[in-house]
Amino acid sequence: MVELDLVVKNGTVVTAADEFVADVGVYDGKVASIASDVSAGPDTQVVEAKGNYVFPGGIDVHVHFQLPFSGTVSADDFENGTKAAACGGVTTVLDFAIQTKGSSIMDAVEARRAEADPKVCIDYGLHAAITDWNAQTQAEIRQVIDYGIPTFKMFMIYKDEGWMADDGMLFSALEETAKLGGHIGVHAESVFVLDMLVERYAQEKEKWGAYAHTLSRPCYTEEEAVIRAIKWAEATGGQLYIVHMSTGEAAEAVHAAKERGVRVFAETCPQYLLLDDEVFKGENGHLYATCPQIKKPHDSERLWQGLFNGDVQIVATDTCTFTTEQKAAWNGDFRKIPFGMPGVETMVPLMYTEGVGKRGLAVNQLVTLTSTNPAKLFGMYPEKGTIAVGSDADLVVFDPKKKVTLRASDLQTNCDWSPFEGWKLVGYPSVTISRGRVVAKDGKFVGDVGHGRFLKRRPFGKL
Amino acid sequence: MVELDLVVKNGTVVTAADEFVADVGVYDGKVASIASDVSAGPDTQVVEAKGNYVFPGGIDVHVHFQLPFSGTVSADDFENGTKAAACGGVTTVLDFAIQTKGSSIMDAVEARRAEADPKVCIDYGLHAAITDWNAQTQAEIRQVIDYGIPTFKMFMIYKDEGWMADDGMLFSALEETAKLGGHIGVHAESVFVLDMLVERYAQEKEKWGAYAHTLSRPCYTEEEAVIRAIKWAEATGGQLYIVHMSTGEAAEAVHAAKERGVRVFAETCPQYLLLDDEVFKGENGHLYATCPQIKKPHDSERLWQGLFNGDVQIVATDTCTFTTEQKAAWNGDFRKIPFGMPGVETMVPLMYTEGVGKRGLAVNQLVTLTSTNPAKLFGMYPEKGTIAVGSDADLVVFDPKKKVTLRASDLQTNCDWSPFEGWKLVGYPSVTISRGRVVAKDGKFVGDVGHGRFLKRRPFGKL
Amino acid sequence: MVELDLVVKNGTVVTAADEFVADVGVYDGKVASIASDVSAGPDTQVVEAKGNYVFPGGIDVHVHFQLPFSGTVSADDFENGTKAAACGGVTTVLDFAIQTKGSSIMDAVEARRAEADPKVCIDYGLHAAITDWNAQTQAEIRQVIDYGIPTFKMFMIYKDEGWMADDGMLFSALEETAKLGGHIGVHAESVFVLDMLVERYAQEKEKWGAYAHTLSRPCYTEEEAVIRAIKWAEATGGQLYIVHMSTGEAAEAVHAAKERGVRVFAETCPQYLLLDDEVFKGENGHLYATCPQIKKPHDSERLWQGLFNGDVQIVATDTCTFTTEQKAAWNGDFRKIPFGMPGVETMVPLMYTEGVGKRGLAVNQLVTLTSTNPAKLFGMYPEKGTIAVGSDADLVVFDPKKKVTLRASDLQTNCDWSPFEGWKLVGYPSVTISRGRVVAKDGKFVGDVGHGRFLKRRPFGKL
Amino acid sequence: MVELDLVVKNGTVVTAADEFVADVGVYDGKVASIASDVSAGPDTQVVEAKGNYVFPGGIDVHVHFQLPFSGTVSADDFENGTKAAACGGVTTVLDFAIQTKGSSIMDAVEARRAEADPKVCIDYGLHAAITDWNAQTQAEIRQVIDYGIPTFKMFMIYKDEGWMADDGMLFSALEETAKLGGHIGVHAESVFVLDMLVERYAQEKEKWGAYAHTLSRPCYTEEEAVIRAIKWAEATGGQLYIVHMSTGEAAEAVHAAKERGVRVFAETCPQYLLLDDEVFKGENGHLYATCPQIKKPHDSERLWQGLFNGDVQIVATDTCTFTTEQKAAWNGDFRKIPFGMPGVETMVPLMYTEGVGKRGLAVNQLVTLTSTNPAKLFGMYPEKGTIAVGSDADLVVFDPKKKVTLRASDLQTNCDWSPFEGWKLVGYPSVTISRGRVVAKDGKFVGDVGHGRFLKRRPFGKL
Repeated sequence: MVELDLVVKNGTVVTAADEFVADVGVYDGKVASIASDVSAGPDTQVVEAKGNYVFPGGIDVHVHFQLPFSGTVSADDFENGTKAAACGGVTTVLDFAIQTKGSSIMDAVEARRAEADPKVCIDYGLHAAITDWNAQTQAEIRQVIDYGIPTFKMFMIYKDEGWMADDGMLFSALEETAKLGGHIGVHAESVFVLDMLVERYAQEKEKWGAYAHTLSRPCYTEEEAVIRAIKWAEATGGQLYIVHMSTGEAAEAVHAAKERGVRVFAETCPQYLLLDDEVFKGENGHLYATCPQIKKPHDSERLWQGLFNGDVQIVATDTCTFTTEQKAAWNGDFRKIPFGMPGVETMVPLMYTEGVGKRGLAVNQLVTLTSTNPAKLFGMYPEKGTIAVGSDADLVVFDPKKKVTLRASDLQTNCDWSPFEGWKLVGYPSVTISRGRVVAKDGKFVGDVGHGRFLKRRPFGKL
Repeated sequence: MVELDLVVKNGTVVTAADEFVADVGVYDGKVASIASDVSAGPDTQVVEAKGNYVFPGGIDVHVHFQLPFSGTVSADDFENGTKAAACGGVTTVLDFAIQTKGSSIMDAVEARRAEADPKVCIDYGLHAAITDWNAQTQAEIRQVIDYGIPTFKMFMIYKDEGWMADDGMLFSALEETAKLGGHIGVHAESVFVLDMLVERYAQEKEKWGAYAHTLSRPCYTEEEAVIRAIKWAEATGGQLYIVHMSTGEAAEAVHAAKERGVRVFAETCPQYLLLDDEVFKGENGHLYATCPQIKKPHDSERLWQGLFNGDVQIVATDTCTFTTEQKAAWNGDFRKIPFGMPGVETMVPLMYTEGVGKRGLAVNQLVTLTSTNPAKLFGMYPEKGTIAVGSDADLVVFDPKKKVTLRASDLQTNCDWSPFEGWKLVGYPSVTISRGRVVAKDGKFVGDVGHGRFLKRRPFGKL
Repeated sequence: MVELDLVVKNGTVVTAADEFVADVGVYDGKVASIASDVSAGPDTQVVEAKGNYVFPGGIDVHVHFQLPFSGTVSADDFENGTKAAACGGVTTVLDFAIQTKGSSIMDAVEARRAEADPKVCIDYGLHAAITDWNAQTQAEIRQVIDYGIPTFKMFMIYKDEGWMADDGMLFSALEETAKLGGHIGVHAESVFVLDMLVERYAQEKEKWGAYAHTLSRPCYTEEEAVIRAIKWAEATGGQLYIVHMSTGEAAEAVHAAKERGVRVFAETCPQYLLLDDEVFKGENGHLYATCPQIKKPHDSERLWQGLFNGDVQIVATDTCTFTTEQKAAWNGDFRKIPFGMPGVETMVPLMYTEGVGKRGLAVNQLVTLTSTNPAKLFGMYPEKGTIAVGSDADLVVFDPKKKVTLRASDLQTNCDWSPFEGWKLVGYPSVTISRGRVVAKDGKFVGDVGHGRFLKRRPFGKL
Repeated sequence: MVELDLVVKNGTVVTAADEFVADVGVYDGKVASIASDVSAGPDTQVVEAKGNYVFPGGIDVHVHFQLPFSGTVSADDFENGTKAAACGGVTTVLDFAIQTKGSSIMDAVEARRAEADPKVCIDYGLHAAITDWNAQTQAEIRQVIDYGIPTFKMFMIYKDEGWMADDGMLFSALEETAKLGGHIGVHAESVFVLDMLVERYAQEKEKWGAYAHTLSRPCYTEEEAVIRAIKWAEATGGQLYIVHMSTGEAAEAVHAAKERGVRVFAETCPQYLLLDDEVFKGENGHLYATCPQIKKPHDSERLWQGLFNGDVQIVATDTCTFTTEQKAAWNGDFRKIPFGMPGVETMVPLMYTEGVGKRGLAVNQLVTLTSTNPAKLFGMYPEKGTIAVGSDADLVVFDPKKKVTLRASDLQTNCDWSPFEGWKLVGYPSVTISRGRVVAKDGKFVGDVGHGRFLKRRPFGKL
């Protein structure tokens, strides 16, 4: 029997189904042994985890690092963004390569890899965002999936930005990807009503300030678009993924669709679960602007219910960091706020404190929502998403008793503010391990830049 | 006691609620007396109705006379169209004034009245079709309603024709009319998916012929658009009316919306109740092309169910007559068929034979669907829509035993073909009376051109 | 033209569908003429109705006159009960003949007729309550229906009283009556849970007083029994009528059943619409005890909703009068309260004030709920239930402006208390006419004892 | 590191969530190690499992060994029944102690333990069947739960057998157990309708033979009773478990109840999933009689759907073995058939062939339905129901390629017939291990009588 590279001792191993005390032994980046007593050799690194949970590493399927947007670029690049992820117990991220209208999808993919590969500190993958649809795009879908990118994204809004897909494009893309095992993620909002309302509130922008952002995007604008996207999935047999779902109404629509057998899945984010649109009323209200925006208390409640009953299968973050300086560009016009906030670094501990600690979420469910389901649906399982013999040794030693008061200044992100500033957490990652390498300890990055690898993912992901 | 102008003797009077044998006496165009024995004076015209029903005159809220469309003009003008109506037991029609983008709504209304007023043989009203939305249009809504036109129409398709209203316009118009007691009728189809599919089938147009018309407009394109329009009605509190609803799926959507309290109403037409899209397969398949097109047997079945259970409240015809010569312009390209068919002349007898005769519809329900509900919802009740003391004497003496085989050549319409050619009917109007004047007998027009009046209708119509 | 017996002049005639000003002429007990001007001869009685409504007479399908119950007999006999009805605008009542276990149904019918026929002051009919089921009972069903009694009643409770029908009996009776056009009315409560709870609260009877009555019969005991009875109607194809439905939960169950096509109808009563179970808390709480008892505010609200949306089709009263002296027999034990209250005399004016006046019920709906629907469903239409040529001249001249403060002492009923004591009404019957005879004026009976006739009703009643 | 007692080498370990190749090491009856290479010492027993699955042992929560019923005793006693279980890959069974009316529950428990303890070959537990309800029974609930029996059973039928619980008892028991963490399993059929129908068909028993069994118990008799039991669970907040659910209608009812938050769970059995009531038509139709009986093809289909979508959480067998000789006692009267069939021995392989092999059930779902869910819901997890470090080493080495044609004569059960005689299976247990001891090989029992232990189970089981 060979000497193990690393052993996590005495922790409470948690998978989507089970929870038990055991040692976890790692060899060559993979889990080799789960046992009541795993022998460490002289060169074996030992991580003591007594009293701690050992989770499979968190997976954030929705991040935007160094994204050019709204006239600036999001403040965490692939290097610092993945460092922040590691510090927060996330060992895999999925970012986006956005097609330029008129160009090929693969051009965007290759450009994005060139930005990311040298910098990433943990494993990462890419979704391909489709902004154009024609015979060439259609033909390219198979190539992109074969390349290891089976998940696509389409925007139902952002007409002026040149990103919007109309219903015909969305329909066609669902149809095409259905054949090849891909899925379409959608940013679902009702573009024409929303544009009309934005225009309406723009005329009173001084009166409302940042709060106009939420006034102009009522819950029904997400609901309607989700219902519509679902209808196209139903018509085509395609697989649909609702990204950053923010309303209870949309959760109901997903629920109803699943009842009748539509292949639809949904993601929500901590900001929609934990905040409400009162945040837009303060002096710094503009900082909180994301797209879609944070909604009402009843939405949070319904989204939490969705996590418990399976209507919502995945928690991700839509991380897109803009500093207070970048945000200041809005200058009182809610239409000009760079939308986005930090998130990947705080997802796991926030969901632990708020979900497991306060709302009775089982730790198995936490793992399911932030690791196993993402891995399965996005074609990375069983390498990612569980702790099993043969899986990648992406592990998080999580101290359920550790008390942390969140401060932007303490975090790895380049962002100088946090939507959860001052929140008191009980439970925090103490050690993060990526393919057998310790990459973060007590919230500080200790790994190597470039350690991460691009993940070639498989099609036909499902739950 | 004054001498009556006309007495209908011994008929079986039918209203939305009751059915009883009585004489109906008319004075000065209005019903003066309903009694077991009404005295006729020497100058009183007597219409014997023993063994016949006496219905309130039919109301067809959806006709397009002399409509410029698809490079031609629909073949029945206001004169012949209203003659045909009278022959078929219809004493009121509602046509449309379609705004020209950039011009005022009232311009269109006045132009349409100039065409109609001198010609109409029975009473008529107009809906205003809104194709543009801006501050001026919004301001004009009140004026149009005050003028006697509280019902508007918006097209969710016909982008290239310049008629389409996007969701923002529809939302705004629902919002505005809600305040003033108006309602918005919608032609509901999913424009972007539909345009994509039309384009797709256009590439195989020789292969499919007229059947491509139905292939390119699957049921879900109506369903989705109806769901979307309902959502805007729900969001705004506006009143929505689904014109020419052709699918069971849309009927389900209306049902669900009514369950949750949305102010939505729906109309269907005989062609959707009685035909299915096999008609597009024959040599003359192109004749049957309407928009939306005739759907599947399950749709007919669900629409009939809707008539029985109240999901569908109104039967109208979408009459828009094109002759075989006009239809021939398609020349094998399904995109170029002038959409439309005759209908106003056969609505009442078809619904009697197929509804009352074959499917157990009560005669009260027939009257409700083709007269009382249209009158109430469109602001014409109680002048129209019932037989009551003081109401307009718009009456149809209907012989329930009369056997008629439908032939285009026997009908008043200028159309040289009929979608129901050769259908055998049992039950047909024998006398039609408009405001106390006999205008048709045994299917032949005997009234005067110009007898009809423009109806100033009231807002806040409901059922 | 013969001279009319009576003319109601200038009133606003209301039917289920229409409302219009007209004179109503009566000859030989029937409506002969409805016209703008009906001539009165020298011997014609003229009732002036200007500014008043003319309704078809109210029909109360649920009364218990001179009912032996709980060791006493209900205080209004057929004479005084029908006088009270007439005073309140009710011209038809349906009472019950309750089979004695082991005896024939017809025995009970004949006994009941012997009690009623000489006394009734308005027309009346009987339901047959089945308490036994065997081959003989089954065989008798046809005879009872042929006799003119197509509507039966079964009690799902009252085990100790010998009235209870178990599920097997109910199933069999639904099955049998379905063939012959009868229907089964049910008193629906869950007997075994209810008996257990009554026993439980009996142990604390001093603590709770009359309030124990409501504690021991939670809403779900009605809901469950209604769901169960509906299931048997669904299984057998039988027609079911839920008498005195008192909960919102049961209304939901009826709604759901109707959605899936079950032949189920429901009645509620003013006490369930207008009172709530706080009434049981006062010193005179025991007076209000009926069975089922008055429920919660949310139940009233849902029942009102049911009247508006068609879930509940009939309003009746379950009149079963017990005086304060009779009620005093309870002596602190809620199990011994004689259940019942007065009602037939106040139904129409209460529903007018509370429904039409306060909640926006259309007068047509009022007529539908209290006259037309009862007549149609119970096989009395069109003689009863409408104002049409040839119908019985059962008419109520109703003054919508008359202000009345309800006082038991002012009413015709023998009851010395009223559940609505002191309620202020706006709108009250001024004249009640039974088959052309004025029987009440301004709340005072002016007719003849014995004027009423037993109604031979028809099977296959429906709405 | 101590020497292991047993190692299962190279198998594919399957849990509710994961599947991976690993060795499983056992020490002192428990799983000690799961690793890519587990060292076996000289005294370690090695079970080679290459190419085989390693499942957590099957758990059958519904067996009736040596049950006195219908004048005879079921043919498999605790010894042979548990041997049969072991041969079929089941390592835990739950049987019943049925209270004698008037006696204490604990008396029945102790009597049953005296029968079982000396004989059982694998671990077992007991449910307590409550047939009586009074203050003493109520008081005893806590004692029974503390003893290790948190799950109770009540029969909604079997009135004459003295087993029936009426709704009041069921309500009370749900209420009481809710407080203490127990649950109530119900045999749900509508007793009064069922008894009436049995009587009806008894009059034609020669005509129908065994088929009268199914005629007299239509699907709605289960549906109604399930709905009713659910209502009491909802009213009390109690936890309800539907045993041997046999209809699609009941599955719908459970689905609806779960949607509104009722704590209800459901079990079905292979006979309901794989057979339909055509079986009662043959000469040996009576053999198949169970209670409830096998239903219609649409029921099987809906129950399979329930296994896939979570409406049905557990598969068990209701094993109650009667030989052809015992069954012959019916003598043509369907009311006298001893109800029951063998099952525990074939559950796992049948569900594998029919579920995993033919219907696309994931092996994880198979394990969930037949092991993990039973363990969790019935208070035995994590000792039972998974393969995790520290869990009982109850393991099944399952050969997915082994072809077996089922023959009663080849099975361990004492039954001389099988409902699945001649069925061809692909996949069968090759080795069954109970707490680290090999107890069956290739379908033959190789363990020790009395090896099994009584399981003291915990309350508050849930999924």
